[in-house]
Amino acid sequence: MKKLVLLRHGESVWNKENRFTGWTDVDLSPKGVEEAIEAGRVLKERGFMFDMAFTSYLRRAIKTLWLTLEEMDQMWIPVYKSWRLNEKHYGLLQGLNKIEMAEKYGDEQVLLWRRSFDVPPSPVPEDDKRHPKYDPRYKDLKPEEIPATESLKETIGRMVPYWENDIRPALQKNNQILVAAHGNSLRAVVKYLKNMSEQEIIAFNIPTGIPYVFEFDENLNLLKDEFIGDPETIKKLMDAVANQAKRK
Amino acid sequence: MKKLVLLRHGESVWNKENRFTGWTDVDLSPKGVEEAIEAGRVLKERGFMFDMAFTSYLRRAIKTLWLTLEEMDQMWIPVYKSWRLNEKHYGLLQGLNKIEMAEKYGDEQVLLWRRSFDVPPSPVPEDDKRHPKYDPRYKDLKPEEIPATESLKETIGRMVPYWENDIRPALQKNNQILVAAHGNSLRAVVKYLKNMSEQEIIAFNIPTGIPYVFEFDENLNLLKDEFIGDPETIKKLMDAVANQAKRK
Repeated sequence: MKKLVLLRHGESVWNKENRFTGWTDVDLSPKGVEEAIEAGRVLKERGFMFDMAFTSYLRRAIKTLWLTLEEMDQMWIPVYKSWRLNEKHYGLLQGLNKIEMAEKYGDEQVLLWRRSFDVPPSPVPEDDKRHPKYDPRYKDLKPEEIPATESLKETIGRMVPYWENDIRPALQKNNQILVAAHGNSLRAVVKYLKNMSEQEIIAFNIPTGIPYVFEFDENLNLLKDEFIGDPETIKKLMDAVANQAKRK
Repeated sequence: MKKLVLLRHGESVWNKENRFTGWTDVDLSPKGVEEAIEAGRVLKERGFMFDMAFTSYLRRAIKTLWLTLEEMDQMWIPVYKSWRLNEKHYGLLQGLNKIEMAEKYGDEQVLLWRRSFDVPPSPVPEDDKRHPKYDPRYKDLKPEEIPATESLKETIGRMVPYWENDIRPALQKNNQILVAAHGNSLRAVVKYLKNMSEQEIIAFNIPTGIPYVFEFDENLNLLKDEFIGDPETIKKLMDAVANQAKRK
């Protein structure tokens, strides 16, 4: 049996302040560090032994992966990083909290950005130093690949080639793969694997720090998917997910 | 100008207890953690911007690299790991401290193992669970590649292909490369780059946690090599190296 584990990074410093982060490279909060260690503990307890891992270019995902692997005593496995696993780029919303957003763009507009599949927030201007083109980590991207903002559709669009060309082939050749990334880049994988509609994936929230395990047969047919960890924590998180969907 | 930085991991839990570590996967001590962060601080201050990094399969080197990259805000660069960058395998000496060694094998024998270029310590028996063949991280090695003990000559011998096939080509294509590893695997690189004799490399001790910078022209001709960091610390470490050599 083959297993793919998706792990959404734990709480970051800006999650705590309720600010949109996107491609801003903020660190994990102390709680986020604990969540990553706990994920490692649960995975170790269940006997996971990863062949390799994938993560984004953002430190909150990388650090989540490192802490998880350290706890599992699997620091030595190969790790591949890609900007394609980055969080959705939130354009000019990055850095703003929900109150500032509503003040600046109005409730209706903010609602549209948050619930829409294909409407991106306003882009970061080309001459704004927060534009990713000024960040050395993206220097090898083609200019047309560097986003100044993204809709969920666009985030999924740039994740698909990475799934097709890197993660899926790795899973074909190996037994257990770990992907530590972000809410929206992981949605791309979930949408693909569970064959979800646009509306379903918008309503589906992956809880932070809880390993999400997909089991496959040798031909990569999906057999089962489940979150693992403390049952009470998972129930709470699943309820929160359900309630979030209800608010629609 | 191209730059290669060698970084020997800081103090481990067993260094502190004066026990031979080799391939035993012990963690950094709190002092070792501080040394790694300080190395990152110094490299950041000097403006280093690495294209990629290499490390071993052992957590004290991997963690040194991670802490250094975190301090430099360069966690996103590609990292390649190889067993060929592991410390020399110390055979049955692993786990023993100097007093236990002398009691078990006699002063003269221990002296020979410690000063010789090509005499390996007694090997770990094939049925001893400490033999690397029982460790999943070495499962992809050919049986004849898995050491039960090593002389410095053998350590250098298995490092050379990794230098030739991986690190050197990476340096040809890029500008700045970081290698975080161990006293004896790094000696292989130093011996090659400085064209040292067997006796010279035995007498050459790389200080822990101090970045050792090699500068090259575009054709990889060595222009300069130096340790960087606090001048007083380096002077002390260099004096210690000189004294160690004097003891011969």
